Amino acid sequence: MRMIDLIEKKRDGGQLTKEEINFFVEGYTDGSIPDYQASAFLMTIFYKDMTDEEITNLTLAMANSGDVIDLSSIDGVKVDKHSTGGVGDTTTIVLAPLVASVGVPVAKMSGRGLGHTGGTIDKLEAIPGFQVEIENDNFIKLVNESQVAVTGQSGNLAPADKKLYALRDVTATVDSIPLIASSIMSKKIASGADAIVLDVTTGDGAFMKNIEDARRLAKTMVRIGNMAGRNTMAVISDMSQPLGEAIGNSIEIEEAIETLKGNGPEDLTEMVYVLGSQMVVLAGKASSLEEAREMLVEALESGKALETFKVMIANQGGNPDIVDDPSKMDQAKYVVDIPAKETGWVNEIHAENVGIAAMILGAGRKTKEDSIDYSVGVKLHKKVGMKVEAGETLVTIYANTEDLDAVTNMLYDNISIGSEVEEPALVRDIITE
Amino acid sequence: MRMIDLIEKKRDGGQLTKEEINFFVEGYTDGSIPDYQASAFLMTIFYKDMTDEEITNLTLAMANSGDVIDLSSIDGVKVDKHSTGGVGDTTTIVLAPLVASVGVPVAKMSGRGLGHTGGTIDKLEAIPGFQVEIENDNFIKLVNESQVAVTGQSGNLAPADKKLYALRDVTATVDSIPLIASSIMSKKIASGADAIVLDVTTGDGAFMKNIEDARRLAKTMVRIGNMAGRNTMAVISDMSQPLGEAIGNSIEIEEAIETLKGNGPEDLTEMVYVLGSQMVVLAGKASSLEEAREMLVEALESGKALETFKVMIANQGGNPDIVDDPSKMDQAKYVVDIPAKETGWVNEIHAENVGIAAMILGAGRKTKEDSIDYSVGVKLHKKVGMKVEAGETLVTIYANTEDLDAVTNMLYDNISIGSEVEEPALVRDIITE
Repeated sequence: MRMIDLIEKKRDGGQLTKEEINFFVEGYTDGSIPDYQASAFLMTIFYKDMTDEEITNLTLAMANSGDVIDLSSIDGVKVDKHSTGGVGDTTTIVLAPLVASVGVPVAKMSGRGLGHTGGTIDKLEAIPGFQVEIENDNFIKLVNESQVAVTGQSGNLAPADKKLYALRDVTATVDSIPLIASSIMSKKIASGADAIVLDVTTGDGAFMKNIEDARRLAKTMVRIGNMAGRNTMAVISDMSQPLGEAIGNSIEIEEAIETLKGNGPEDLTEMVYVLGSQMVVLAGKASSLEEAREMLVEALESGKALETFKVMIANQGGNPDIVDDPSKMDQAKYVVDIPAKETGWVNEIHAENVGIAAMILGAGRKTKEDSIDYSVGVKLHKKVGMKVEAGETLVTIYANTEDLDAVTNMLYDNISIGSEVEEPALVRDIITE
Repeated sequence: MRMIDLIEKKRDGGQLTKEEINFFVEGYTDGSIPDYQASAFLMTIFYKDMTDEEITNLTLAMANSGDVIDLSSIDGVKVDKHSTGGVGDTTTIVLAPLVASVGVPVAKMSGRGLGHTGGTIDKLEAIPGFQVEIENDNFIKLVNESQVAVTGQSGNLAPADKKLYALRDVTATVDSIPLIASSIMSKKIASGADAIVLDVTTGDGAFMKNIEDARRLAKTMVRIGNMAGRNTMAVISDMSQPLGEAIGNSIEIEEAIETLKGNGPEDLTEMVYVLGSQMVVLAGKASSLEEAREMLVEALESGKALETFKVMIANQGGNPDIVDDPSKMDQAKYVVDIPAKETGWVNEIHAENVGIAAMILGAGRKTKEDSIDYSVGVKLHKKVGMKVEAGETLVTIYANTEDLDAVTNMLYDNISIGSEVEEPALVRDIITE
């Protein structure tokens, strides 16, 4: 088999066999296929697309290119959840204990983050003492005992995807549905999930800027997940503005706690119920989304979910007292309320730029070498569609510097106030097949 | 400027500026743009095509990436001729002295060949003593004195094209009209031509297998040649069977001599008149193709063209006596006539495979390291549309081995005899704008 023949076949509209796709993934991973052939191949895929069968084979080949985590010694159906990314996305931290509290085993592997804030793992490290590096045996024991543990991605998961992603990043081949879908799903499958819930975000703060692309990506991932033997569902959610109110690390943990107490932002709470219901159904703990949702509401309102969060924190060496007293986490030196300049309705909150404001404060990493300041961030008091009076607090900045003019201006520039508008719909679509 | 932005722009249907194309060509040539970005870019061009302006800019950038030959000290309009390749293509060797004999300066740079036979330069080396390496000053002096000289490509012509071609060859991006056109034209322009005649071959023995692609390529090259300030014309010629009768080196020189004497194969003679007429018109020596053709017929029939060939040979150190006695060139040890097995009309001569048969005999190089046996080859006695009797000679093999079973069978397999068919039209189209 020769790589040039595969490029030519795909280029001319042919469909690649499983053997051909394996040849590419193995050859590219071991270096026998050079970058320049891989990038020409990726560009061909960009134009010619791939069939579901091809994407599934690509996904499985990448999943099998490195370690594949074996979670079979955990009882029950292990359901993983993945978001295609957003700003102020605190769902995983609420979902993990909530879903675990109704008996769904949550063996969650999460990543660190580049961008506006840290990833889920970074955010959890804002909890004093919390350990995210857990030995595999202990990880499995914790999930079997307490239904929940969250760990950093360990080992050599889907190295083919890692290498290909780096190449796509410099060859203008990132924006390709089959390549995005296979990249995400390969990591989920290598992480040992039996079933997968996908949160495909859409809008300005998301990777998929429009709903049609988001729907195509969601449908593709659901189909290939199912073809690969993993029950998969997807939610298409709005990310035209940040989710919830907090964008930071400590302040997002605090927001998660408030949500588990029933006092969280409406959109975050709703998102958690929608995604959680799918996880419960896929785990076989409820026979309908409605039934699943009732279970989750009950767990949250009864305090069971919050209790599970405390157990999870304690299990991983963290201080569970932060649940009752969040000020035990690092606090920002300066907490500055930014007032609205005019009366009206919030028309737009430019998610990406508000995220960048949080990053400038120190909440996120611009490069892998940057360190995160857990205490800083921004908190939105008014979301799109809400009324605000001039002088009322629009945003609170949590900072460790007094020099906030640039960030303040950035926030003003990216939160527009005007005439009355509707709140945007949070859940845009549910994809189950 | 960043290469990834250029890939993305082209990918999304944008048109690249001259500055952007220069950035790519310069960066790729000096190594600052890596192969993997270049190959993704080439694949994008494969799908999105290029405007005439983009192709012209690409052509000029590649032409300017290395030495540009200065022929300004040669009087008159220097017309170059280029063929997109074929089997048994002896036209240049006839054309050079013929056109020179009517006063058109022919300062021809030619290449060695990989494939069925040698290139023009290799074929000329079949003439005892003939020197193809001529110092630049001497080359120009010879053309000014005698109107004609043929030299091997010297110096560093269009290194960008050389590097890009090597990359295209391994990334399935060879078959792209804008890339083929710019590759050919960049070398012609770097060679110092004022005007260019293109022979775009089509059919089984050619790079362009069908007439539509050949026409598109020809039109593209004519347009970009003219945009680059070089008067350009093209002939689309049939290469469904080999051109002329001889496929080899010495035997093609002999065929060229016969053609200059007026006894050459009909198709080769016609091709020489068609291409030569364009060269004469572009050189400003005639005002119409008809007038030019009359001049050429006169030069050939009067023996003036043959005389010019003798001068050209002598000028370059070769033995001009071969014109009167071709047996002074290396002769094959075995000359074997292959009889037709049946009576009928020649239906098809598979150009490419008959060429490969000649290469197997030693007439061509498979790799750059191979050496050429000038004396060997095959000579077709019957072309498509001609009647042949069983037992009559179909092909003559010139070989230095007695073991000719494989080549004989190959020739039988690739020359089919059947019911009456028409001779294929030689000139399929003339493109002047």
